[in-house]
Amino acid sequence: MSEEYTECQSRAATASEVHGISMPEVCREAGDGVEFIHPADLADHLENLSLEKQVCALRHMPTEDAAEALAELDADIAVDVLENLDADVAAQIIAEMAPDDAADVLDELDEEHRDVLLDKLDKEDSEELRHLLNFDPDSAAGAMNTELVLLEQNFTADEAIAHIRQEMAEDKESPYYAYVVDEADVLVGVLSLRDLMLARPGSRVGDAVAGQSVVSVTYDTDKREVASLLSHYNFLAMPVVDFEGHIMGVVTYDDILDIVHEEASADMLGMVGADPEESVDTPWLESVRKRLPWLMINMVNSALSASVVYMFEGTIAQMAVLAVLMPMVANQAGNTGQQALAVMIRQLATDRFDQKKAWLAVLREGKIGLTTGLFMALVAWLGAWVFTGSLTIGAVMGGALLCDMLLGALAGGSIPLIFRALGRDPAQASSIFLTTITDGAGFFVFLGLATLFVF
Amino acid sequence: MSEEYTECQSRAATASEVHGISMPEVCREAGDGVEFIHPADLADHLENLSLEKQVCALRHMPTEDAAEALAELDADIAVDVLENLDADVAAQIIAEMAPDDAADVLDELDEEHRDVLLDKLDKEDSEELRHLLNFDPDSAAGAMNTELVLLEQNFTADEAIAHIRQEMAEDKESPYYAYVVDEADVLVGVLSLRDLMLARPGSRVGDAVAGQSVVSVTYDTDKREVASLLSHYNFLAMPVVDFEGHIMGVVTYDDILDIVHEEASADMLGMVGADPEESVDTPWLESVRKRLPWLMINMVNSALSASVVYMFEGTIAQMAVLAVLMPMVANQAGNTGQQALAVMIRQLATDRFDQKKAWLAVLREGKIGLTTGLFMALVAWLGAWVFTGSLTIGAVMGGALLCDMLLGALAGGSIPLIFRALGRDPAQASSIFLTTITDGAGFFVFLGLATLFVF
Repeated sequence: MSEEYTECQSRAATASEVHGISMPEVCREAGDGVEFIHPADLADHLENLSLEKQVCALRHMPTEDAAEALAELDADIAVDVLENLDADVAAQIIAEMAPDDAADVLDELDEEHRDVLLDKLDKEDSEELRHLLNFDPDSAAGAMNTELVLLEQNFTADEAIAHIRQEMAEDKESPYYAYVVDEADVLVGVLSLRDLMLARPGSRVGDAVAGQSVVSVTYDTDKREVASLLSHYNFLAMPVVDFEGHIMGVVTYDDILDIVHEEASADMLGMVGADPEESVDTPWLESVRKRLPWLMINMVNSALSASVVYMFEGTIAQMAVLAVLMPMVANQAGNTGQQALAVMIRQLATDRFDQKKAWLAVLREGKIGLTTGLFMALVAWLGAWVFTGSLTIGAVMGGALLCDMLLGALAGGSIPLIFRALGRDPAQASSIFLTTITDGAGFFVFLGLATLFVF
Repeated sequence: MSEEYTECQSRAATASEVHGISMPEVCREAGDGVEFIHPADLADHLENLSLEKQVCALRHMPTEDAAEALAELDADIAVDVLENLDADVAAQIIAEMAPDDAADVLDELDEEHRDVLLDKLDKEDSEELRHLLNFDPDSAAGAMNTELVLLEQNFTADEAIAHIRQEMAEDKESPYYAYVVDEADVLVGVLSLRDLMLARPGSRVGDAVAGQSVVSVTYDTDKREVASLLSHYNFLAMPVVDFEGHIMGVVTYDDILDIVHEEASADMLGMVGADPEESVDTPWLESVRKRLPWLMINMVNSALSASVVYMFEGTIAQMAVLAVLMPMVANQAGNTGQQALAVMIRQLATDRFDQKKAWLAVLREGKIGLTTGLFMALVAWLGAWVFTGSLTIGAVMGGALLCDMLLGALAGGSIPLIFRALGRDPAQASSIFLTTITDGAGFFVFLGLATLFVF
């Protein structure tokens, strides 16, 4: 470290040299006419540098910029940087971050490092962060920002605006709503800046929100549910309250965007048995470790389908052409089922759950499976007839395909609902279980019908 | 219609009766202390009513509320309602909507109906909407809102605030940013309300934004790209400009949330060959029509894999147990490939594209495929040995599994990139093509090795 440090220091004769080739246009000394680089772009840029350069750059840029950039970095990188920064510098940057972002980063650090940094913060900040770190990161409290503008209900509009100006000058995050509370900090209403700017100067904010039915969530609400509510109401922020209605913080739209992205990834990855949080930045050995159990389950499941084929080994030995057609039945039903699966998983992700509507959707998939199944069965019957010259094998192929596609559609539609009813993630490994059903049933019906009718 | 109308009118003696059982707590006459129901909830509620009641309710609620509710309704329902509403009433509601929402709804109507409604609007509104309707709905211009607050650059902060108050009082949507333009309406900077409230009263807005490097998109930018940029910068709104930099409108965060949801659905549905816009509300026969072509392609593809098996019909006739193990190889490699596929599709959805990083990600999948392949090959080798009593068949099974899993991982990782390079949607039917590869190769390697070594 010390050698790196010296090197970094010696290269840091001027700010422009530090940022040098690797960070063009970063000229962030206060002053007019200086080009501004957005923290998100700065973070992108930092992600392409070596750890050594990342640490060096963060140490030498203004703390405020470093804090914003750190909040935008990938979690893995942010942790590496924090662990390699001088603890005092790291603590200064943490102190400058929005509490929700700071808690997210600290949550990823190992406990020892976290405690070192927290101990270096002033008492108020460290208590605040320790408090946030106690919450489930997947809950509203885990995603909430605690820097908010509170208005007492007997403030006038004028007083409120003056109060907001003062608060704004201190805080970094821009509030778009102000929260009106009673004497006990119970949330009684929400005002947008727009409402306040349009209000009569002398009117009381308490009167302005009278009769409002405030939408809020309790701190233990799942963050996916918060995202769904915010998206439903087109709010910029969702207030978070405790069970007595005291305001604790807000979850803002930028966190919601991240949650919606995470959720979509989790569903798609989970469906095929990858880790819901996996990305191309996950260390590959970790991916191996996380994917292997599902591949093992897939192996066991496919052994089950294979055992069905084994039952009919004698039939296949007599007529090997059945082994040619057999995978087509299973594959086609598998695809049908996956279409149903994808529709249902997305439905559960974007809509609030309605038991009746959900089962009507399974019925809908059944109708689609039956109709597409009839059509494909006809095609398969003709194809197999022409290919094998046997009308019976054609009919067996068509019949098996129809049954298996119908089953696939119903299974694809209902698996996410059944998983959900069992308290599981509706997407997780659903594709693996679906394939077991469509393979097993496809082989059984096709080879079974062939054994009965062809010989 | 006229009978329905009379019935609706006669039931409408009082507002509370209209909303009656079907719309409890909707007491929206102006006045204090009246419970407020959010348009999004109102829309949810309306969606559960019959068309007749929907039309009746919208006709009798204040136009402003009807406009907000209509904007929140599912597109299919909004179209039905508009087609059955009295054209004058419908036009009034359209006039009250935000132009982007109005254009979205009108875009779904057939041309004849659309023209009738547009002709009933005042000249300015109808020209505005016809203008918006000319743009590609998937572009920034197709999603943008044209109601924005423009500030001339020589305004002082005080004048700016007075101007915003005046504009806000007229418009329905709350602006969170004001856009500073020069004499020719070229965008020169963006100010948040927060910036303005904190600015010295006499300072010029032009000076406040001097040196700002404004982030904006041209009107033809794909809306997915706009979503990705807004999410990257955590902006509330993204300004849309023409090729000369004149401001045309803004795309706001609430539209972005919808785009992100649509995009996630499109990827997951597209992957398995369902229509990207399909949901459980899509009429089932339309789903049949849209899914059948992909099922046909899947059938042709699986016939290709089957033809590989057909090449080895003789081998299978001599040793039917190969038909038992063969689907396991293909299935396992298919699952491995789908894990890689899901990771890559999500990567392309959430990150901007970086050619080098993308191919490194394929390499990463290759390493994962090789490692999980080695492990599963060992398991399969032991399993097949125990099951068949033949060490050779075990080795053939293990070797085939390793090759096919590696291939599956590489194919899953690269298919989205290849599709993208060909100018196609990276997700569309990717799972279908992947399965063809893993099935075909799995059958070929397994049966090929068996033919070479077992006899």
